[in-house]
Amino acid sequence: MSMVGMGFVEGEMVLRVSVGIDLGGTFIKGALIDEQGNLLVKDEVPTEASNGAQWILKRIEELTLQLIVQSSTKRSEVVGLGIGIPGFIDPSRGLAEEVINIGWHDVPVIAPLQTALDMPVYMENDANLAALGEAWVGAGRGYRNALCITLGTGVGGGVIINGKVLQGESHMAGEIGHFVLDPDGAPCNCGHRGCLETVSSATGVVRLARERIEQGEQTEIQKANLTAATVFAAADRGDRVAQAIVHEAAETLGRGLAIAANLINPDVIVIGGGMARAGETLFTPVRLAFQAYALRRVAQAVTLVPASLGNDAGVVGAGKLALYP
Amino acid sequence: MSMVGMGFVEGEMVLRVSVGIDLGGTFIKGALIDEQGNLLVKDEVPTEASNGAQWILKRIEELTLQLIVQSSTKRSEVVGLGIGIPGFIDPSRGLAEEVINIGWHDVPVIAPLQTALDMPVYMENDANLAALGEAWVGAGRGYRNALCITLGTGVGGGVIINGKVLQGESHMAGEIGHFVLDPDGAPCNCGHRGCLETVSSATGVVRLARERIEQGEQTEIQKANLTAATVFAAADRGDRVAQAIVHEAAETLGRGLAIAANLINPDVIVIGGGMARAGETLFTPVRLAFQAYALRRVAQAVTLVPASLGNDAGVVGAGKLALYP
Repeated sequence: MSMVGMGFVEGEMVLRVSVGIDLGGTFIKGALIDEQGNLLVKDEVPTEASNGAQWILKRIEELTLQLIVQSSTKRSEVVGLGIGIPGFIDPSRGLAEEVINIGWHDVPVIAPLQTALDMPVYMENDANLAALGEAWVGAGRGYRNALCITLGTGVGGGVIINGKVLQGESHMAGEIGHFVLDPDGAPCNCGHRGCLETVSSATGVVRLARERIEQGEQTEIQKANLTAATVFAAADRGDRVAQAIVHEAAETLGRGLAIAANLINPDVIVIGGGMARAGETLFTPVRLAFQAYALRRVAQAVTLVPASLGNDAGVVGAGKLALYP
Repeated sequence: MSMVGMGFVEGEMVLRVSVGIDLGGTFIKGALIDEQGNLLVKDEVPTEASNGAQWILKRIEELTLQLIVQSSTKRSEVVGLGIGIPGFIDPSRGLAEEVINIGWHDVPVIAPLQTALDMPVYMENDANLAALGEAWVGAGRGYRNALCITLGTGVGGGVIINGKVLQGESHMAGEIGHFVLDPDGAPCNCGHRGCLETVSSATGVVRLARERIEQGEQTEIQKANLTAATVFAAADRGDRVAQAIVHEAAETLGRGLAIAANLINPDVIVIGGGMARAGETLFTPVRLAFQAYALRRVAQAVTLVPASLGNDAGVVGAGKLALYP
């Protein structure tokens, strides 16, 4: 029996940790993650995308080294770096192909960071890594096959099969936000109409509310401070218009999740993102719609739960990618 | 280097073959399959389901032995038996839980056949095995991630990821036929409304035609000999009503496939079953609808092709399951 293989050398535990980086439009978040998914230390720096790709890569390098120092981890215990990229990637060529919100186009990521840091570097789509984090040590812990979605300005998603990200052919798997559920629906940023995220995102809820206000419907919701949160709060206070909007968002989301579940037959669906903070006001009607549209045996296999890692899901997933590539 | 590992012993090639069985409502099909996916010999016997489960299991046993004899294969070269079950299964308990069209309910399949035949026995849902067969040596050969569907009286489907069946939590993955694409649509056998297969199956096409005929629309299609094939033939001859029906079926199928592709990002979609015989009359509008509803990068990654194994897909997939479990 190899002591190294057991994680021990001469009675002393050998730590294996990794650095997880979540590259966002506003902040670069980073954390040191251990093999159990514990977040040992975390930090963030502004992205300041206008300074260009080289500048950002330098910040990622510095943040990585700084996290290692902050945590008093030995350099030899850091097995690698995982990075979540908020756009289209090609890991086989080590490229971020298209990252619209930071203006990247065919930027080499893996090679320069591997050279600078002298450790293996792995990349994945950020939504897939958030899904991986939740499935590993978040709300999806203990389940095998997870569908994880994030309800924000859009709807992101990731599929985890037996603890691994379902990447798909071009790392595009999990795009539940662009399920065309109503071909005659509202226009979506992607160029199509009636995508799930035109209804079941914060943006979608705000749009539905604005339309109803403009049509003169009687509601306490006001155009001045219109957010998804104010709509959910109004629904909680009994506002009928707000309740109808929540119903529509939940119905569309529940149907989209049922379709996804009929295809991949998961044992858990994890829902996170800002809009998930609405709690049971959202979850109860989503569960009802899901049950109404999924095949019975598919629905029976699924637990539908709120995400538990919050904004840390991305760095935790990035850390897992580097620890267990 | 182990000669056995290379498939050779003392200069003589060691064959590894398996038996694939496709249990259907009318026939039990069987074949001997080699490691390259060649079908060495095949045969079939009537299911005669009314004789009961034990009788059917005995027929499977006899068919297996008979195929081995017919092919002059040595018993020692047969590594196992794979069976496709047309219903709900629980392979961990070796059970066919619910097989409606042959009246099975919690029938033990694996244990009795393993005992009788003295070889490993594997089971899987029949649609998943047809998908596995097509992905292995059929139209999906050479691709990594396949979505395979069968357009018949219903719409079956299976998802293959890196050469393995995506089973899901309760072997229900791939149920694209029950995507609820139109919540106000026609009733489906599953109890829901507006499932994909209420429109894009042979049954769906016949229903759409009957409705239009009953509404008095001018068409050459007649209620007397109404099949999906007559509708497609009429569309080919320029019948406007038939063309509208084909358009509707293709539009719904293309949108369902786009939704599935947005979730799993496959590199190939294989379409088989009786209705796929309509050829480009069906495939051209399905491809157009698919392109119109899938995300651009998802659509770019996919080739959409007709199945190539026909009725053999199931036994070939069952054989693969036993050869490479």
